[in-house]
Amino acid sequence: MTRQLHLNLFIYPDGHHEAAWRHPDSDTDRILDIGYYQELAQKAEAAKFDAVFFADGPSLAENIRYAARFRLEPITVMTAIVAATERIGVIGTASTTYTEPYNLARQFAALDHLSKGRAGWNIVTTGAANAALNFGLDAHPVHRDRYERAEEYVEVITKLWDSWEDDAVVADRASGLFADTDKIHRVDHVGKHFRVAGPLNAPRSPQGRPVYVQAGSSEDGRAFAARWAEAIFTAHQTLESAQEFYADIKSRARAGGRDPQGLKVLPGISPFISSTAREAEELHEQFNDLTQPEYSLAQLERLTGVDLSAYDLDGPFPREVIDADVERSEGSRFQLVLDIVEREQPTLRQLCHRLAGARGHRVVTGTPDQVADTIQQWAEQGAADGFNVMPPWLPGGIDVFIEEVVPILRVRGLFRTEYEGSTLRDHLGLERPASQYASRPAATLTKETA
Amino acid sequence: MTRQLHLNLFIYPDGHHEAAWRHPDSDTDRILDIGYYQELAQKAEAAKFDAVFFADGPSLAENIRYAARFRLEPITVMTAIVAATERIGVIGTASTTYTEPYNLARQFAALDHLSKGRAGWNIVTTGAANAALNFGLDAHPVHRDRYERAEEYVEVITKLWDSWEDDAVVADRASGLFADTDKIHRVDHVGKHFRVAGPLNAPRSPQGRPVYVQAGSSEDGRAFAARWAEAIFTAHQTLESAQEFYADIKSRARAGGRDPQGLKVLPGISPFISSTAREAEELHEQFNDLTQPEYSLAQLERLTGVDLSAYDLDGPFPREVIDADVERSEGSRFQLVLDIVEREQPTLRQLCHRLAGARGHRVVTGTPDQVADTIQQWAEQGAADGFNVMPPWLPGGIDVFIEEVVPILRVRGLFRTEYEGSTLRDHLGLERPASQYASRPAATLTKETA
Repeated sequence: MTRQLHLNLFIYPDGHHEAAWRHPDSDTDRILDIGYYQELAQKAEAAKFDAVFFADGPSLAENIRYAARFRLEPITVMTAIVAATERIGVIGTASTTYTEPYNLARQFAALDHLSKGRAGWNIVTTGAANAALNFGLDAHPVHRDRYERAEEYVEVITKLWDSWEDDAVVADRASGLFADTDKIHRVDHVGKHFRVAGPLNAPRSPQGRPVYVQAGSSEDGRAFAARWAEAIFTAHQTLESAQEFYADIKSRARAGGRDPQGLKVLPGISPFISSTAREAEELHEQFNDLTQPEYSLAQLERLTGVDLSAYDLDGPFPREVIDADVERSEGSRFQLVLDIVEREQPTLRQLCHRLAGARGHRVVTGTPDQVADTIQQWAEQGAADGFNVMPPWLPGGIDVFIEEVVPILRVRGLFRTEYEGSTLRDHLGLERPASQYASRPAATLTKETA
Repeated sequence: MTRQLHLNLFIYPDGHHEAAWRHPDSDTDRILDIGYYQELAQKAEAAKFDAVFFADGPSLAENIRYAARFRLEPITVMTAIVAATERIGVIGTASTTYTEPYNLARQFAALDHLSKGRAGWNIVTTGAANAALNFGLDAHPVHRDRYERAEEYVEVITKLWDSWEDDAVVADRASGLFADTDKIHRVDHVGKHFRVAGPLNAPRSPQGRPVYVQAGSSEDGRAFAARWAEAIFTAHQTLESAQEFYADIKSRARAGGRDPQGLKVLPGISPFISSTAREAEELHEQFNDLTQPEYSLAQLERLTGVDLSAYDLDGPFPREVIDADVERSEGSRFQLVLDIVEREQPTLRQLCHRLAGARGHRVVTGTPDQVADTIQQWAEQGAADGFNVMPPWLPGGIDVFIEEVVPILRVRGLFRTEYEGSTLRDHLGLERPASQYASRPAATLTKETA
């Protein structure tokens, strides 16, 4: 059987290109209208995508002046989407640094109940340093400390999601027994960062646990993902880089006693599609022409830690002012920028344009066949189990992908024509984990919490 | 013009009577199905109710063994409901003690956006002491400390909801100006309990601020409500008690410089309705016969602080073992229990039955006309601006109220036949507050944050 790909639609309000909101084809007027997001999810569902995906961060991006970079809170948006769809999964980002685990456990469990098993949690430690100031902290915890906390956080939340055994609710009207309290367990977690007694205050959710998604590719991020993640969203500019990551993360998972199939690698891909390669390039340039240096340079400063606004945009990128040894929130994304600089020797403006499309994720331009070729190559050459599709603008950028590229993937036997199951775990080919507290552990008990 | 009442449907999974889930007319099989909650809200919307209302608490009720007292997280449930309705408001409970204000501000603002202005926040400090153990605390903060924190919390969250002026989003494609950052304000709150820099990371919501609802009737609770609340959910067994509360809270609001019309008093009412008074009594008894002493006594212990399980259920309530001076989480509800004891001299079982219907809220039994009479009397004699309707069981308990009582209220000119506005503020007759940061303060700027 041909390898089956997984496809998520990663929804950014107006699209992923930083200047998308300025383009006449973007639906900028509707980016605060939930009907718009529901329609995007319905399109992705009609195309049998695995899930829609939402980023998040609990602070305001400093460059809101130049782009639609507000954040609609994902739990609410995802819930509105599951109410308007039947099968597609919803994956939303939430922070282990800035959310109480009991609150997060409740909301994702509720989302999994309401969606009948379609919820996924994108586990992040939060990159934006200014978030700390919204939560009473003097400074954003450093990368390593955030990951240490995240480890314990996921342990706690997993215990909470497991705290009701699957058959704890009895609801026997005659005897008056609503729940078998022998099957509802205190978790009594006491650790360095958290003390949580539990149990959760709702029955176990349809998937047992929402799907664990992760998006960091630093050393700490890889170790974390190998231990916990069931899907990884990752940024790669080249096939080689994606192959290295894919092999590394699968071998780490194997070394940790996990089945590497239980961990799906999903690079981001942002496609500019047109009927000729040249037209696709021109479309990409249309968007790049709408970028604003103030925004692009602020983005770049966030990634490199250096204010580059005094440099000539059309001069060479000033590699010498970047100190690679500085601690950075987004370590892996910083390395990706440095790799582009080494490989392509861009001017400052060219680098800004390289990052404008999808913040470091792979931008492909070409005909539908060319885009499908790239997808197939990455899938068949050990670089991806699927993709987070990041339309440059919306809704047109996903329409053209669904209408032109998805049919080619189907002809090549790479993508489903119908859903086979009903939960996000079904779509992704992941097992439903048993509760770690189950009195008679089921055969499907996953290794990571055994 | 006749006084117009406000009616909310307060949704408990299987209904408010503690034994509702055991009754054959309850839809116990559907209490984890979101479609069930959406249908209840649609019924209330068809009947032109102001809002649906959800309680919450971030811990598991200890008596889950005997009743359906799990908690589906309200933000998610409310979002699913707004996705399936057009006009009705949604009011959900969230804790100032156990939620980060920045996170709560984001979620309610998002809900207000998604619902196009139908969100209300029921502000609670959390009564259940075991919640503390889910959030790393050794003990639940005492009543007074929780209210002190709540004061500051509401100040912070109001600043966050005001942090974008109404016209901050420009979205001018030509010039590239997405948001006028002169109209987006840091809040820079520094207080005893919170340090929050802000601004919020999303535009101001349709209602400016979600409606502020409050449900505590203790001394601290009344002071808090008079300062902040726009609607108050309150428990009273007698007309006199409700009148005292109504007069007191309105006069406190007036003393604080507020228009007392901007603060709606909504007692809870749990109606058993049948075609004769006797049949309604019998219906009530049917439910009481399904109660379980283990559950009822645990409820009573929570309210009184005393384990009464060793006492004879059919002996007199042992008033002498209750120490009224002990600090209690739910001070006002405790007083209500003592008042019942003084007034009615019940046996322990009778007291359990008195509280089984709606945890201390007024239970009325009677014909549709009799129930409408009570409602009219309370409304016309200075005890209520409307009611939180608490059906003893669901869905039948709200069906009969809508089919039999609402038409009578309409004939008497007490309740609307159509919505006049589109937001929850419109339904409740509340002004839309201007942002406290608005450069040109609008005439509607409310006093409480001026």
